Amino acid sequence: MSQFLHTKYASLETYTPGEQPRDKKYIKLNTNESPYPPSPQVVDALTRQEVEDLRLYSDPEGTALREKLAALYGCGPENVFLSNGSDDILNFAFMAFGQDGAVFPGLTYSFYPVFAALHGVLYDTVPLREDLSIDVDGLCGTGRLTVLANPNAPTGLALSLEEVERIVASNPDHVVVVDEAYVDFGAQSAVPLIQKYENLLVVMTYSKSRSMAGARLGFALASRPIIEDLEKLKYSTNPYNVNRLTLKLGEAAVDSDAYFRENARKIMATREKTAQALRALGFTLPDSKSNFLFVKREGLDGGLLYQKLKDRGVLIRHFSDPRIAQYNRVTVGTDEEMEAFLTQVKAIMKEEGLL
Amino acid sequence: MSQFLHTKYASLETYTPGEQPRDKKYIKLNTNESPYPPSPQVVDALTRQEVEDLRLYSDPEGTALREKLAALYGCGPENVFLSNGSDDILNFAFMAFGQDGAVFPGLTYSFYPVFAALHGVLYDTVPLREDLSIDVDGLCGTGRLTVLANPNAPTGLALSLEEVERIVASNPDHVVVVDEAYVDFGAQSAVPLIQKYENLLVVMTYSKSRSMAGARLGFALASRPIIEDLEKLKYSTNPYNVNRLTLKLGEAAVDSDAYFRENARKIMATREKTAQALRALGFTLPDSKSNFLFVKREGLDGGLLYQKLKDRGVLIRHFSDPRIAQYNRVTVGTDEEMEAFLTQVKAIMKEEGLL
Repeated sequence: MSQFLHTKYASLETYTPGEQPRDKKYIKLNTNESPYPPSPQVVDALTRQEVEDLRLYSDPEGTALREKLAALYGCGPENVFLSNGSDDILNFAFMAFGQDGAVFPGLTYSFYPVFAALHGVLYDTVPLREDLSIDVDGLCGTGRLTVLANPNAPTGLALSLEEVERIVASNPDHVVVVDEAYVDFGAQSAVPLIQKYENLLVVMTYSKSRSMAGARLGFALASRPIIEDLEKLKYSTNPYNVNRLTLKLGEAAVDSDAYFRENARKIMATREKTAQALRALGFTLPDSKSNFLFVKREGLDGGLLYQKLKDRGVLIRHFSDPRIAQYNRVTVGTDEEMEAFLTQVKAIMKEEGLL
Repeated sequence: MSQFLHTKYASLETYTPGEQPRDKKYIKLNTNESPYPPSPQVVDALTRQEVEDLRLYSDPEGTALREKLAALYGCGPENVFLSNGSDDILNFAFMAFGQDGAVFPGLTYSFYPVFAALHGVLYDTVPLREDLSIDVDGLCGTGRLTVLANPNAPTGLALSLEEVERIVASNPDHVVVVDEAYVDFGAQSAVPLIQKYENLLVVMTYSKSRSMAGARLGFALASRPIIEDLEKLKYSTNPYNVNRLTLKLGEAAVDSDAYFRENARKIMATREKTAQALRALGFTLPDSKSNFLFVKREGLDGGLLYQKLKDRGVLIRHFSDPRIAQYNRVTVGTDEEMEAFLTQVKAIMKEEGLL
């Protein structure tokens, strides 16, 4: 830290992204990336001409992509906001709508408390219930910015649309953010509610189901006034924040919607198969509606399992938070990757005298 | 605006990017883009494999690119910060270093007051001198965050390295930001001073001389403590903010450094030729060291010239600020584009009885 940094950021704890080790080739099940490439149409969209045109700025309004997303989700382009990944939008949401403080579940995406601290937003958390599910009543009528991930991370558990609507309807004077990064893997989207509730902000990403984590494209769907607020912040920080190639590829991805839905279906099938195999090995895990599994095994230390798998070339995500240190989050890869993962898990369990 | 927006942003005035009209094909001299494409090596760097790998997140540390930039600029990778365009870095700088307020020239990049207002940074401006040059003494010893563009926008005038050093040396307890977006077109960079002054932050971009405005890549060079502060803010907002393809292309651009320097040389030659022709037509303009000219003609209203050129298919930048409403900023394009621009200027001058 320099002597020049604003004192309000002195004790800020930053977000810790999943590790990206380069020491060897891993089976990488630690950052919820898709095991499948973007659609062939996306790959074809990147011509040499597009690269040559990089001399020109991108369209700050992303008009063409917003129109395509609006058509896909059944709203108007004026209800769509584009930004450089969904983290960017979540950051804007805490900045814009946190004046009276914020509330989110006690266990959720670990970036929310970082955004809150960054913008001086005081927050409370609502503990998960015993079964790791979100306490819907606890998130109702908070009178503050309310943020939930649906499905939730790192549990993978989803709320029903009725439960989400109850939370949104109970907070008419404050924004409710529904972070739907993982919604395409079996949960219900709240997008149909944006016409009904002016306070609902649904945040989505191309990083997971659309296989474009490295392209940095997030979008939000909401009532026009909410979108205007987000635009105000974007035009006060970084108007051209989505690059030209990503806008182009984002359009091609919408055009090949069926491709990514088929990938999501494959990932869900692999997830169910993997979950069944893990349960047969004595693991407990919530019923994931996402592209990851949140797993623990009685008698097998979470940190130990993570480290032994890493030594064997399989990378999963372990969290230092003591409340969940016995768990690991395992991204659902291909069938082959998950078989390799299970083979190593069994070998470790044998080493530990558990099999 | 929604009823939910934080009251501190209610009266925020956003930055206005240059217009990007799509009604017809223009000779586009309004946003300081390069008329030349990125280097052939950059175009070749974008393979199908790179697009398929978009399923994976980018390296948040941008290690490979930071190493290349460090080698190019003669510092360590720990002195290099990457972000999603230089606006992103300037935003972080106002956020991080503005606790005691800020000072910048009275006429400069119009985004600075927007960043200041966004982060509640009180600022003063130091008027330009009669000849539109920066008042160096006025920027010395301010005891606040001090920000200058060198060359300055929209005048194109550059300070000498000695003048920049005087400002930096006079403000040891506060950061001095030198925004070198246009430095490759004939000005002296302050980068050699970063080893000497812990408070110096030099901000650069790929958008201008490197012909990659649409790729969104900015970087900063500074002492390690300053870089740490910027990293802290990046890791608290959007750690993966530079996408995979841009990182890759950014590396190829460094590898083909000679290509962009040759383009910069061509642009400087075209600039001098155009400046001479404009002066012969009675225009007055400061001695630009950038890729644009800041021009006015006695008897020819600035707004009128802008509009008439637009009607004739030539887009230049006009500012509504009454202090400079008689000026226009004209990006230096190719020789052919500037000849077309001059032909239309002459035609308009004839219409107006000035030729």
